[in-house]
Amino acid sequence: MFIEDYRRLARFDEGKMQKITLFESHRMFADLYCLLPGQEQRAHSHHDNDKLYFVLEGEGTFLVGASETRLGVGGCCVAPAGEPHGVRNDSDGQLVVLVTMAPHPSIHSPGS
Amino acid sequence: MFIEDYRRLARFDEGKMQKITLFESHRMFADLYCLLPGQEQRAHSHHDNDKLYFVLEGEGTFLVGASETRLGVGGCCVAPAGEPHGVRNDSDGQLVVLVTMAPHPSIHSPGS
Repeated sequence: MFIEDYRRLARFDEGKMQKITLFESHRMFADLYCLLPGQEQRAHSHHDNDKLYFVLEGEGTFLVGASETRLGVGGCCVAPAGEPHGVRNDSDGQLVVLVTMAPHPSIHSPGS
Repeated sequence: MFIEDYRRLARFDEGKMQKITLFESHRMFADLYCLLPGQEQRAHSHHDNDKLYFVLEGEGTFLVGASETRLGVGGCCVAPAGEPHGVRNDSDGQLVVLVTMAPHPSIHSPGS
């Protein structure tokens, strides 16, 4: 599966943060999260799933555990299983984040 | 775990492609692959692991299954479990790729 340029898939909605799935299986998903100014993914956690956020465009504030950090393009963070995490676009521009999570939280292994 | 800018971690070596681990657990790893012109990761496959390649800098040719595609910044591809895959830097510049794989091929789940 090849995607020539993720920018052709990114989209925004005034109503809420957009999640665009690039790939998913029971092993992992890879999504684009597209946030307009003021939008956020509220803090939450996953019992048995690790999540990577990697900033592709813009800036935002990322929460992992008890720490918050502002990250821009080329910044990333990981929320290991059990750690609260979230992101908010508190900038004036669009924010696009590559997000991978493993395993997929809602597609279960054929063997499980 | 926060990384302000992956570019501070990227490094190259004339001897071979460099892999820089950003994060790893039994669930997944996230690496930077840093390839000088002419360097490659030869085609190989993993029985039960999905791999995502996401181009951060430069251009390279990516193999997935029987298909090869040239990808530049913002391009990505996924090799699902069992699909042969690889990458070569057949450009004149440096190539940096974010790579995530799930589950980790050599760190085993505590329960397994």
